Amino acid sequence: MSYRNEQLSEEKVFKDPVHRYIHVRDRVIWDLIGTPEFQRLRRIKQLGTTYLTFHGAEHSRFSHSLGVYEIIRRIVENFKGQPNWSHEERLLCLCAALLHDLGHGPFSHSFEKVFDLDHEDFTREVILGDTKVNEVLSKVDQNFPQDVADVIHKTYPNKLVVSLISSQIDADRMDYLQRDAFFTGVSYGHFDMERILRVMRPMEDQAVIKESGMHAVEDYIMSRYQMYWQVYFHPVTRSAEVILTKILHRAKELYHSDFKFKLAPTHFISFFEKEVSLEDYLKLDENVAFYYFHIWQEEDDAILADLCRRFVDRDLYKYIEFNPGHQYRELMDLKDCFIKSGIDPAYYLEVDSSSDLPYDFYRQGEDEERLPILLQMPNGELKELSRQSDIVEAISGKKRTDHKLYFAEDLVDQLPEDSDIKQRIKEILKG
Amino acid sequence: MSYRNEQLSEEKVFKDPVHRYIHVRDRVIWDLIGTPEFQRLRRIKQLGTTYLTFHGAEHSRFSHSLGVYEIIRRIVENFKGQPNWSHEERLLCLCAALLHDLGHGPFSHSFEKVFDLDHEDFTREVILGDTKVNEVLSKVDQNFPQDVADVIHKTYPNKLVVSLISSQIDADRMDYLQRDAFFTGVSYGHFDMERILRVMRPMEDQAVIKESGMHAVEDYIMSRYQMYWQVYFHPVTRSAEVILTKILHRAKELYHSDFKFKLAPTHFISFFEKEVSLEDYLKLDENVAFYYFHIWQEEDDAILADLCRRFVDRDLYKYIEFNPGHQYRELMDLKDCFIKSGIDPAYYLEVDSSSDLPYDFYRQGEDEERLPILLQMPNGELKELSRQSDIVEAISGKKRTDHKLYFAEDLVDQLPEDSDIKQRIKEILKG
Amino acid sequence: MSYRNEQLSEEKVFKDPVHRYIHVRDRVIWDLIGTPEFQRLRRIKQLGTTYLTFHGAEHSRFSHSLGVYEIIRRIVENFKGQPNWSHEERLLCLCAALLHDLGHGPFSHSFEKVFDLDHEDFTREVILGDTKVNEVLSKVDQNFPQDVADVIHKTYPNKLVVSLISSQIDADRMDYLQRDAFFTGVSYGHFDMERILRVMRPMEDQAVIKESGMHAVEDYIMSRYQMYWQVYFHPVTRSAEVILTKILHRAKELYHSDFKFKLAPTHFISFFEKEVSLEDYLKLDENVAFYYFHIWQEEDDAILADLCRRFVDRDLYKYIEFNPGHQYRELMDLKDCFIKSGIDPAYYLEVDSSSDLPYDFYRQGEDEERLPILLQMPNGELKELSRQSDIVEAISGKKRTDHKLYFAEDLVDQLPEDSDIKQRIKEILKG
Amino acid sequence: MSYRNEQLSEEKVFKDPVHRYIHVRDRVIWDLIGTPEFQRLRRIKQLGTTYLTFHGAEHSRFSHSLGVYEIIRRIVENFKGQPNWSHEERLLCLCAALLHDLGHGPFSHSFEKVFDLDHEDFTREVILGDTKVNEVLSKVDQNFPQDVADVIHKTYPNKLVVSLISSQIDADRMDYLQRDAFFTGVSYGHFDMERILRVMRPMEDQAVIKESGMHAVEDYIMSRYQMYWQVYFHPVTRSAEVILTKILHRAKELYHSDFKFKLAPTHFISFFEKEVSLEDYLKLDENVAFYYFHIWQEEDDAILADLCRRFVDRDLYKYIEFNPGHQYRELMDLKDCFIKSGIDPAYYLEVDSSSDLPYDFYRQGEDEERLPILLQMPNGELKELSRQSDIVEAISGKKRTDHKLYFAEDLVDQLPEDSDIKQRIKEILKG
Repeated sequence: MSYRNEQLSEEKVFKDPVHRYIHVRDRVIWDLIGTPEFQRLRRIKQLGTTYLTFHGAEHSRFSHSLGVYEIIRRIVENFKGQPNWSHEERLLCLCAALLHDLGHGPFSHSFEKVFDLDHEDFTREVILGDTKVNEVLSKVDQNFPQDVADVIHKTYPNKLVVSLISSQIDADRMDYLQRDAFFTGVSYGHFDMERILRVMRPMEDQAVIKESGMHAVEDYIMSRYQMYWQVYFHPVTRSAEVILTKILHRAKELYHSDFKFKLAPTHFISFFEKEVSLEDYLKLDENVAFYYFHIWQEEDDAILADLCRRFVDRDLYKYIEFNPGHQYRELMDLKDCFIKSGIDPAYYLEVDSSSDLPYDFYRQGEDEERLPILLQMPNGELKELSRQSDIVEAISGKKRTDHKLYFAEDLVDQLPEDSDIKQRIKEILKG
Repeated sequence: MSYRNEQLSEEKVFKDPVHRYIHVRDRVIWDLIGTPEFQRLRRIKQLGTTYLTFHGAEHSRFSHSLGVYEIIRRIVENFKGQPNWSHEERLLCLCAALLHDLGHGPFSHSFEKVFDLDHEDFTREVILGDTKVNEVLSKVDQNFPQDVADVIHKTYPNKLVVSLISSQIDADRMDYLQRDAFFTGVSYGHFDMERILRVMRPMEDQAVIKESGMHAVEDYIMSRYQMYWQVYFHPVTRSAEVILTKILHRAKELYHSDFKFKLAPTHFISFFEKEVSLEDYLKLDENVAFYYFHIWQEEDDAILADLCRRFVDRDLYKYIEFNPGHQYRELMDLKDCFIKSGIDPAYYLEVDSSSDLPYDFYRQGEDEERLPILLQMPNGELKELSRQSDIVEAISGKKRTDHKLYFAEDLVDQLPEDSDIKQRIKEILKG
Repeated sequence: MSYRNEQLSEEKVFKDPVHRYIHVRDRVIWDLIGTPEFQRLRRIKQLGTTYLTFHGAEHSRFSHSLGVYEIIRRIVENFKGQPNWSHEERLLCLCAALLHDLGHGPFSHSFEKVFDLDHEDFTREVILGDTKVNEVLSKVDQNFPQDVADVIHKTYPNKLVVSLISSQIDADRMDYLQRDAFFTGVSYGHFDMERILRVMRPMEDQAVIKESGMHAVEDYIMSRYQMYWQVYFHPVTRSAEVILTKILHRAKELYHSDFKFKLAPTHFISFFEKEVSLEDYLKLDENVAFYYFHIWQEEDDAILADLCRRFVDRDLYKYIEFNPGHQYRELMDLKDCFIKSGIDPAYYLEVDSSSDLPYDFYRQGEDEERLPILLQMPNGELKELSRQSDIVEAISGKKRTDHKLYFAEDLVDQLPEDSDIKQRIKEILKG
Repeated sequence: MSYRNEQLSEEKVFKDPVHRYIHVRDRVIWDLIGTPEFQRLRRIKQLGTTYLTFHGAEHSRFSHSLGVYEIIRRIVENFKGQPNWSHEERLLCLCAALLHDLGHGPFSHSFEKVFDLDHEDFTREVILGDTKVNEVLSKVDQNFPQDVADVIHKTYPNKLVVSLISSQIDADRMDYLQRDAFFTGVSYGHFDMERILRVMRPMEDQAVIKESGMHAVEDYIMSRYQMYWQVYFHPVTRSAEVILTKILHRAKELYHSDFKFKLAPTHFISFFEKEVSLEDYLKLDENVAFYYFHIWQEEDDAILADLCRRFVDRDLYKYIEFNPGHQYRELMDLKDCFIKSGIDPAYYLEVDSSSDLPYDFYRQGEDEERLPILLQMPNGELKELSRQSDIVEAISGKKRTDHKLYFAEDLVDQLPEDSDIKQRIKEILKG
């Protein structure tokens, strides 16, 4: 039998707290899970700094990746024999699902922002480069790694396959909403996935949802909305991210100014130099990053040491509502006061904004064209979700933004009690 | 108001996936949670290498410690106003619960075994030493740190207080059974804790259980039994621990033989030298340990590099049932074959045994005298659990042991196919 | 000790699948639960005919009433000692919660519609009349029954107390959403009640919600929305109700036309005569009603017998979307065709509409003034929910109506295949 | 296509709170569910009088029957293509599962005991008699009804098929343990059914369990054990059953003594006369039975009226531990005292015993030969469960019996306070 079709002598199962069991029958999938590049995902937390807000959120991208694979496995199982569906795409779907997050680095959000990287580029590099993952995929077929990369990159010709992995209702989102809700312990994030999977139908360009399942989809959209605002954008998490970002900036600045590190930033140099090789990238997992932050607490640079201590000991910045558009003057004032007080505003003051678009339909000419969720009516007609659902219509296309100002309150508190500057700072920060 | 009685202006809650919410009203508790020593527990996994078997088990001792605190908080709330209970012990109970695991290091089981340490000693040192935790506790009362340490060390005069934290049905076990079941996703580990808490009654020397709650306790004992055999002693987890132990042994051996490490084992030296200061101990969390294993993959010692690669990439040893008592000859034979084949049996072969005593009553003269679980009959009389429960009686005092042989199968497979030694090894390993 | 304050020697608990345990300490509550009038609620299903759609929905108003009591018990426990709250109202709240549904009869919706009754009138009568419930309440205080009735009737002077039992976020709704979701098995109906209870604050006229709990309230509003459309208004349930209504109409008509029943409608006569005494009312529970339907399958009136058979054997009417406003002509046509075919449209054809207003704020001058849900901002200010929540704003005040036409398809199918009338009927019913 | 193989144009699903969804594709199954005989199961509670102890236990045999069907459906799906399995047996298995409880009457336990009936006989009669169920089954094949009856009666030649429906680990038990736990709300009753189904293997005479699933089976056995003692044999439930039994006895006695009933016991006559036709049997569902108890509260016989009031209003008998073997004298004494006090001991005093054998292996020569649960070892060998499992071994074959004395305490309390008889009764009843 060809490697593509090789089955394990006995099905393997992983116990999963979200989907109960994850089932593996394909040798290819089993081999991919065993590669060092996939095992590395155990050392990258799924939700970055969120564990500092919700202590249960210590789960890794490894378990999420298995979860996405399992959802796709069930979808593809349901699709078998249906019109518009080529079952030869099965293994491709499974592999793309399993590997879609392979390029994530430690605390991706912060690292990508500071070093101007995109984890999707690295996902592609792992799949196409000199890796064990590539070795396994190439055994299926010489072009198979490229196909997998194309599905993840959304350039694969079969748009239906792409839509299962990346769309407004894809296996990725269905897994992370449920998984992140499970581990954080919040009560949002529940929706009837079993029903959604059962009413999904393959169409030429995307999977559509039978109209009888509309309410399950509404529930899913609402889950997503709640998870964004309750979990993903939680200000305490963002506060930790602000500090992390500042650490990376400071270390980079020190590196470029020839600062003598006690612990040289070996694993970071290619990041600072903007020449990150795949090998360097893969070496820097969260254990390694954390090791540096740990040790750097004893560097001679007071700011780097202080920022690292804050991150390691979870001594985070306080925050207030603050709209930099309306409160530009106050922000300038504040920076000025900080400087006068000897607190560097570049490291101890930050305005951070988060925004989310919970669901949107296609709007011609926009930068990112979003595939809408389509309902299949009993007569076969397709209708865009927000036309049928009042609730979805209500939040559709409405971007919500939240602005906050983060700052080191303890440093302000240490200023002399009777100083005018302290008074002024306190006044502005009262919000 | 005294610090001991100081309340937060508003109750703080932590969202917890196991107990839903963890409630904090005491300033002392809030301050303890904020100490670096307590935050460090986020960097120690609750179940060591178990995440390599059950991928969900990535939770830390931080969340377990909060959970034990929450259970004790509820117990003490229920005890308020009951006979035999001094409510002044309340804060002491809460602190001892929160801090009981403070001295755990990375992968405790393996480290303690290799370096002959006891995490309980370090718990005491953190509480009594020059730490932020000690600073907070001392503000309550000069003797308070000692009291907390005594409760954890089971030498505190009020045995009832001790029994809430350490006995055969204590808050520690009630939290970890539920929490570990939740994160691994196994279906064992459920019992009706709410009921157990409601039928717990304070007595002079220990908490007892009203007889009407016996079945809930039976369920708890069975959960514990199943969790031990299904999760805690899982052979794949033990396989990872064998490798981890071997890494530590090898590094120690190399250190003592003046091997030139590329990455010097700085954080390990005091362990190798058997002179572990508290400061050194606290610095070595799992991120740091993992960093070394990561880097040591490139050391010049083939065995150390190989063991580290196995651990990092999860390339574990295979195992078979093997009783070293009955199969002593085979074991000698096997070691011999390994040596002849150039595979060092000291690193690539290991017999490991696990055993558990699910529940036991007091047996005079035994090393560790176990406090039995007592049922309070409707007439007030106390009876030992196993006299009332058939199920518990059945497993009471019965130690079960499981022996397995772990070995690097891949190295054996690489031996020349037609060699007699390989034949002989394979024969023995067939089991 | 007075009866009002009398406590049971030991707390009683009821195991409840929704709230885990229901706790009773007050003698008054215990005695009320034991009255025949309260026990009667075991014989009235919470969701009427819904069990014919969702087979799990066989739960009674008894369990719901205990659930509402338990929620109020927790709220009142939390309110203890807070400003605006008089803890003397405690027992009144508990009793009103427990007894609020006491006047429900069998399949309330249908009975109330056909016989022009209001279960709230009967609730008052049970509380104030010659009943065991009244006997218990009167032992508390001569005026106590009237107070309980006033709270349920929303005329009690303390509006805060009223709002706990009847408002847009009251204990009644919080119980039934969760309970009905649990028993039907749908995945809607989950919201974080524990959090809502924790952020509820007593104010002069109503309980308000701390702004930090807004998202939990959003989730609750969405649950309500989904439960209405997915469960409460399910067309199969409504089809069963249509048939039930027709049975009652037919029996009444036959009674007034001196039809000779084999089983005289003894228990229904006072309903037919519009002179329902409390005693008669309480005698007619669902077992009794069902007994008649059972026996009436053998009455000589073909329509009554057929309708009863349909109800008992769940041989329900089919339905199509049908808007009687837009399709008036078709409806007239259809009735005409039915008459010509010998199928009585008064019994075998029915347009039924359901509509829901998921949340609304106060609109001056409307018939029923709805108390809005108020959020308490960090600065103490109160804001109406829909002004703060996009999602709630989106569905606020928007009434949605669903029209369906129900009909006995089998009778139509039995018409001669080639008849023009059948053709015409089929054409209209194609929708 | 033949009726046997006819598939619905679209799969139907029932929302089920225990198994999430129940899937129906076969026309035969769909038609069976629609028969009046199957719909009748909605009017028979699954747990008889248990709802008077656990108020959530109001679920019917209808939902249990669907659940057993669903479990068998999944088992048979898994068996497809495996050795020892003839997939032609599929529909037979599904039908037998769905219909296995069809002959249950109201409060089966009490009715069967008083009237010396066996519901299994009626199950066979419904399947083989002049019923809609038989009509549907006969359309499959002339012999099909007999086959279904044989499977349920355990006389079908393919023992494997029989074992799926009736054995110590069958679909019936797996459904009711989970379902009854769900509706009562107790925390017992959880076990990992998904895993058990996955490790079930068809063998010639029965389904066996792969050894790797032993712990899931242990959990199932323990669930069963706990459910028996915590739920099924709960003394409050048994107290209600005692009263119910007494009602039936009294009514029968009155009937035979020509008592003039106000409401003649029409539906009971054939039971009293021991000539129960199928038609009579099916007519007496729980609504009908309850109607009589309701009305009989006003009969002129004081005992019948009182017993019915007790049952309807849940005014149950008290109970004490009482072993009639050891306490024979006291029992005689008590009866004597009751008679002297004018309280008929035949109706107001009852010793009731319950006993359970949680698991047993085959013991030659015993009345009911029990099929043991067999584990399939990795080498293919079969071993009886209790030889491998310490826990199961511990409770295997051990019958536990619980004796209680039930009595009308209120009648005793009404005796003159200073009477010697009252003293004596009280003394004995103190236990």
